[in-house]
Order: sequence, then C-alpha cells, then structure tokens
Amino acid sequence: MIRIVAKNLVKADKMDAFLDMAKVLVRETRDKDAGCIRYELVQGIDNPRLLTFLEEWEDQEALDKHMAAPHFTDIVPRFADCLEEPAEVTLYKELL
Amino acid sequence: MIRIVAKNLVKADKMDAFLDMAKVLVRETRDKDAGCIRYELVQGIDNPRLLTFLEEWEDQEALDKHMAAPHFTDIVPRFADCLEEPAEVTLYKELL
Repeated sequence: MIRIVAKNLVKADKMDAFLDMAKVLVRETRDKDAGCIRYELVQGIDNPRLLTFLEEWEDQEALDKHMAAPHFTDIVPRFADCLEEPAEVTLYKELL
Repeated sequence: MIRIVAKNLVKADKMDAFLDMAKVLVRETRDKDAGCIRYELVQGIDNPRLLTFLEEWEDQEALDKHMAAPHFTDIVPRFADCLEEPAEVTLYKELL
C-alpha cells in the first residue's frame, strides 16, 4: 500500500479554477483507476488556501497507471498556474 | 471530521527511541480514544526518517480529549528530543 500527501497552496484568485479541475480529477480517479483505495481533497483549517490530496494506492503499478491516465495528464499540469509554489508531494509506506 | 497530517523528521540515532514511543501512542490511542476513526504512522519512501501520523477524528471534542489523555501528554513532549526540527502538524477538514 502506498499513501500520498500532496499539498497545494492555491493563489487566492485561483481557488475556483483549482477546485473545478480537482472535482473532475477526484471523480474520474475514483470511478476509473483500479487500485485506488482512497482519493480525497481536504482543506487546511488554519489556511483555507491549502488544498491537499490524501491518497491510498494498492501498489506502485496502480499509482503509475493513475499518473498515465488522461484525467491526470490533462489536469495536473494545469494546476501549476493556480499555485503559489510547486506542489509538495510525499509518498509513504505503512509502518504502524 | 478532522484530518491531521503530523510530520516528524527523526534524527538518525533516535529512530528506535521514537518508534518505541510511537508504538505505545498508536496502540493506546486506537484502544482508548473515543472518536478516533484512524490513527496510523507511515514512513517516507524517499526519506525513511520522515515518520508521519495520519489521523482522522470525529470532531474537535474527540481531538481535544486525545490531546489531554495521559498517553498523549506523557509521550508527545518526549518526541521533541528525537526530532531534527519541530513537528509540522496540519489540521484539515473534508472538501471532496
């Protein structure tokens, strides 16, 4: 199992644009990507412009296929224009 | 529902000490803390010294009680000596 925490600090005037794209990405990923156990977008309580994907994948193969899927390759590069700084993506394995 | 991502960058010579304490904290929290939906420790794939708690709580009241419980107040302050830098704790609410 692979866990991902992908943090996005969104520009104030790009929140709607980011969320419109994120909605499609979340829906398509949940509906279409085999091996996706969990794929959620959460919002910072202290900083509402911090929008973070919390993900769980069965294995690296499932994650690789997700990152090659059209909904990923179409949408994720377009997030960049909405962000204050590059996304911070951290991959984890289970421990306890 | 409240999600927490609590990142700990552990000193190389303190990994065992941190993990010994984390095992107790995880076990006690899961066993005793009402409103705890998920409480896991995961390890960075690129940096194995990055040990992150991924948590889900029913509400702020459950989280407050957890942070007042003996297993929290005994153990969490002792993590500090094991860390390269202060823990980075981010609270989130559900969005998508």
